[in-house]
Amino acid sequence: MNNLAETNPHLADLNTDMLYHLGFNSKDNLKEMFGDVRYVVMHGANHRAGDFAHTLNDTMAKDFANAAGESMGADMSEDELKPLGSTDRFFLYKVGDVISVSHGMGQPSHSILLHEVTKLLAHAGVKNVEYFRLGTSGGIGVEPGTIVLSENGVDPSGEAQYKLHRLGELVNVAPTNFDPELVGKILDVRDDISVVLGNTSSNNDFHYEQARMDGAYCDFTKDEQQAYLARMHDKGVRNFEMEAAGFASFCNRLGIPAACMCVTLLNRFEGDQVDLDPVTYADYCSRPWKLMMNYLKMAHAQPAVEV
Amino acid sequence: MNNLAETNPHLADLNTDMLYHLGFNSKDNLKEMFGDVRYVVMHGANHRAGDFAHTLNDTMAKDFANAAGESMGADMSEDELKPLGSTDRFFLYKVGDVISVSHGMGQPSHSILLHEVTKLLAHAGVKNVEYFRLGTSGGIGVEPGTIVLSENGVDPSGEAQYKLHRLGELVNVAPTNFDPELVGKILDVRDDISVVLGNTSSNNDFHYEQARMDGAYCDFTKDEQQAYLARMHDKGVRNFEMEAAGFASFCNRLGIPAACMCVTLLNRFEGDQVDLDPVTYADYCSRPWKLMMNYLKMAHAQPAVEV
Repeated sequence: MNNLAETNPHLADLNTDMLYHLGFNSKDNLKEMFGDVRYVVMHGANHRAGDFAHTLNDTMAKDFANAAGESMGADMSEDELKPLGSTDRFFLYKVGDVISVSHGMGQPSHSILLHEVTKLLAHAGVKNVEYFRLGTSGGIGVEPGTIVLSENGVDPSGEAQYKLHRLGELVNVAPTNFDPELVGKILDVRDDISVVLGNTSSNNDFHYEQARMDGAYCDFTKDEQQAYLARMHDKGVRNFEMEAAGFASFCNRLGIPAACMCVTLLNRFEGDQVDLDPVTYADYCSRPWKLMMNYLKMAHAQPAVEV
Repeated sequence: MNNLAETNPHLADLNTDMLYHLGFNSKDNLKEMFGDVRYVVMHGANHRAGDFAHTLNDTMAKDFANAAGESMGADMSEDELKPLGSTDRFFLYKVGDVISVSHGMGQPSHSILLHEVTKLLAHAGVKNVEYFRLGTSGGIGVEPGTIVLSENGVDPSGEAQYKLHRLGELVNVAPTNFDPELVGKILDVRDDISVVLGNTSSNNDFHYEQARMDGAYCDFTKDEQQAYLARMHDKGVRNFEMEAAGFASFCNRLGIPAACMCVTLLNRFEGDQVDLDPVTYADYCSRPWKLMMNYLKMAHAQPAVEV
C-alpha cells in the first residue's frame, strides 16, 4: 500500500481524522484494534459481511494452519463476534487478520468505504494489505453458478476505464485492471469450483444500464439488447455488476493488490430476472466464499513476508 | 405517474415480475398491501427509514386530521410497525398511505430502489404518488443546519444533467429538475425551519469528486478547491450529496412529482470533515423530517383528488 502521506499530503494537516461513515476517528486506538490486518474482504449486503465473518471464524479454527503447521485456533466465540464501529451505513467485522465488511450497492457507496477503510488501516500502521470483493452478478455467455474472476473492470461501453470529476472535469483516476499476480494465485486454488477469467462491466444502474428489459422504463428491443450483450462478450466481458471498475481504479491509485470474484446468478443472453430457488441461490452465493477461504487458507500457511 | 405499459411495454411479457432487491413479486397481493400508497419518503440509511416511520406513526395519531377535521388515528402499534419484504438491501415500512424506505448511498443504489418500488406500486394499481428524498449534505455557502430544497439536480460540473449508458452509449435519461409545484407547496409549509432553494450537485464519490482534501488520495490544492466551490456556487449550487440528479431524472422519466430536501451538516467553504456534537447532529438531521411532517399534515387535510 502506498504511503498516504504521498497520495494525500493534506492528511497531515488534520488534527483528528473523522471516519464519518465507519464511526471511528484517528484518535481511537486503531493500531491496537486493526494493526495486524492483512486482508479486507468486501461484500455488497450487510448480512453477508456478518455471515462471512462467522464462517471464517469457524473455518479458521477448524481448518487453517500457519506456516509452522500449527492450528490458527478460533479468534473469538460466536457471541464475541460483533460489528465494530457504526452500523448506520456499513457492517465491519474483524476475524484474526481479516476484515469482513459491507460496501452497499454501486461504485459511489463502495468508494466511501474504500477511502475510509484505507485511512483506518493507514492510521493503524498497516503497510501491506490485500483487498477482495465477493459478490453476485449477471453472467454474459457463462453458465449460471460460474465465478467470474475479473481481469479488468470496464464501463458499460466495454472500455477499461473509470472516470470521476476532478474539480468539475472528468478524469481517469487510475487503470482498472486487477492485480495479475493475485488473480493468478486465486485461480491456482480454485479446486473444483467453476471459475472463468474475464472482464467485468460495472454499471451505475441495475436495470437500464445493464440492458434489462424489466425496469420501470425501457426503450430498446430484445434484438438490440442481444446485439449489445454480444458486443460486450466480444470485448471479453463475462459479467455485469456495479463496483469492479471503481474498485480496481481506487486500489491501483493506492497501490493495493486487489481481486474481484462474483458468481453469476443467470446468463443474461437467456433472461433478465433473478428467479432461483432458495437452495440453488444459497449454493451459488457460497461459491465466492469457498474460493476466498481456499485463498486465505493457502496464504496463512505461507511464511509471513516482512514489509 | 405514467402508465408503465407505456414506459416499458415489455413488462406485459413477464409471467411474474420478481422485485429481487425488495423481496416481493407481482404474484403477491400487492394491491391489498400497497394499493392506498400516495407518498414515498426515502432516506439513505436503513435506520432512518425505520425511525421516520415510527415518528410518522406517532405524529399521524396525535397531530394529523383529514379534510373533514377527523383525527387520522394510529395506523398500528409500535410493535406492529416492522419492515416489509426483504431487509437484505433496503428497509421498507408502510404507515397509512406513506412508504418510508431506505435507498443506500449513491445514484446507482437509489436507482435500484426507484425501479423496484415504482413497479411495486404500479402492480398495486397506484396511479397517483409523490416521491421525496430526505437526507444530509455538504452546504456550499449556506449556514450549517439549513435545508436545501432542490430546484435541479446537477452533475459535479454544475450542469443539470444525468447520463446513463443506453446499450453502451451515454444518453440523458430525462431532465433533472424537481417538480416546481411540489417544491412550492413544501416551501409554503416551512414555518420557522431554515430552508433555501438551490441546485444540488449529485456526486459519485464523497471524497475526491466532492473536492474533499481528506480522502485517501488528493491531487489538488486548497486554492483550487475553493475556486471550484466558488464556481459551483456561481452556478446556483448550494449543496453536494450523492442522489438528487439521478432521482430527478428517474421521476421525470416516469412522470412522478418529486422533491429533495437535504440538510447541510457543514459549509464546505470552511472545511471537509463532519464533526458535529451528537445533539447538534440530531437536531440538524431532524429538520428535513419536520419539514416533511408539515407537508404530509397539510396534504392529508386536503380533500382527496380522484385520479
